[in-house]
Amino acid sequence: MNTIITIGRQYGSGGREIGKKVAEKLGIPYFDKELLARVAKESGFCEEMIKNHDERPTNSFLYNVVMDTYSFGYNTAFVDMPMSQKVFLAQFDTVKKIANEGSCVIVGRCADYALSDYPNCLNLFIYGKEEAKAQRISERQNVTFSQAKDMCVKRDKQRQSYYNYYSNKKWGRADSYDLCIDSGKLGIDGTVDFIIDFVKRLEEK
Amino acid sequence: MNTIITIGRQYGSGGREIGKKVAEKLGIPYFDKELLARVAKESGFCEEMIKNHDERPTNSFLYNVVMDTYSFGYNTAFVDMPMSQKVFLAQFDTVKKIANEGSCVIVGRCADYALSDYPNCLNLFIYGKEEAKAQRISERQNVTFSQAKDMCVKRDKQRQSYYNYYSNKKWGRADSYDLCIDSGKLGIDGTVDFIIDFVKRLEEK
Repeated sequence: MNTIITIGRQYGSGGREIGKKVAEKLGIPYFDKELLARVAKESGFCEEMIKNHDERPTNSFLYNVVMDTYSFGYNTAFVDMPMSQKVFLAQFDTVKKIANEGSCVIVGRCADYALSDYPNCLNLFIYGKEEAKAQRISERQNVTFSQAKDMCVKRDKQRQSYYNYYSNKKWGRADSYDLCIDSGKLGIDGTVDFIIDFVKRLEEK
Repeated sequence: MNTIITIGRQYGSGGREIGKKVAEKLGIPYFDKELLARVAKESGFCEEMIKNHDERPTNSFLYNVVMDTYSFGYNTAFVDMPMSQKVFLAQFDTVKKIANEGSCVIVGRCADYALSDYPNCLNLFIYGKEEAKAQRISERQNVTFSQAKDMCVKRDKQRQSYYNYYSNKKWGRADSYDLCIDSGKLGIDGTVDFIIDFVKRLEEK
């Protein structure tokens, strides 16, 4: 049976590392930034441009103003869409294709929403305490603790805005996911083992 | 080592049943409605009145209008507080006393917030899919599925409003808790076992 694990995560929570280790231990493919190259290949969009729009919100207000002015009531076609929406749709398609190929771990990109009809999809959310996240980012990016704190807030605002705009759920609300874990409680490796245990319990059920 | 488990829960998610079973399996006391009798005994308030204010929000707008009109800038003392706030404070004290006595499971009543300084406090949130919750409530309360759906929405609004008013966190947001689980994924007993496994992993750490 295929098991698709999607991971939403707060910036600095270690969600990416956890996702990668879960995939390794289960021996299944892992997609985070890896998704972007695949989207580029399948959509024909340039990878650099996809990166620029990756998990960033559409400026929907400006978009709507422009569309209302020029569309005169006609349906706006793909060609009239802002680039961020085209990139979202291309990612959406690629996420579904990847899930159809077999078990995998997909991090971010509203993958849980794209796969909401898939019965064997397990949707996780990984988060952490403010201090722990800033500590991780300050070490990884070589910035001050205070700068790291600001980066965490800013990136999570972008992710939240992107997720809430494109999906029908709320980013970071427990009931948008099947299981949500503070990665600081058991640590990165402890959380990996705990998630794998959850997957095994589900498969046994 | 004492382990205090607090459980926030959506109405109809089975959080109460899960809390009770976790407490039984760990051989530790369980407090849900049981807390109210204890609060009555310790505070001197009548139990019926405590029940009426239990996990219901203060009408803070009206309260503030009245207090602004009559207090003329003086600090309002306990005697001037609305009854709902007095009940909250009494519950707050009792939750701390109970936690000081040893390991236990406490359901609701902002217990996680009251015990935010306790290092061995594990804060859980249990939730479920709309259909599953309405099904459970309709069977338990002998009401129609549609009535049960309405009850779920209404009760959760009260709980959310109570929690957000008295605590510094947001009810139902993943990062207000250590671990959040959809009880429908593993079922009631499966979720109980999974929580106990989490407690053991924490104790081993």
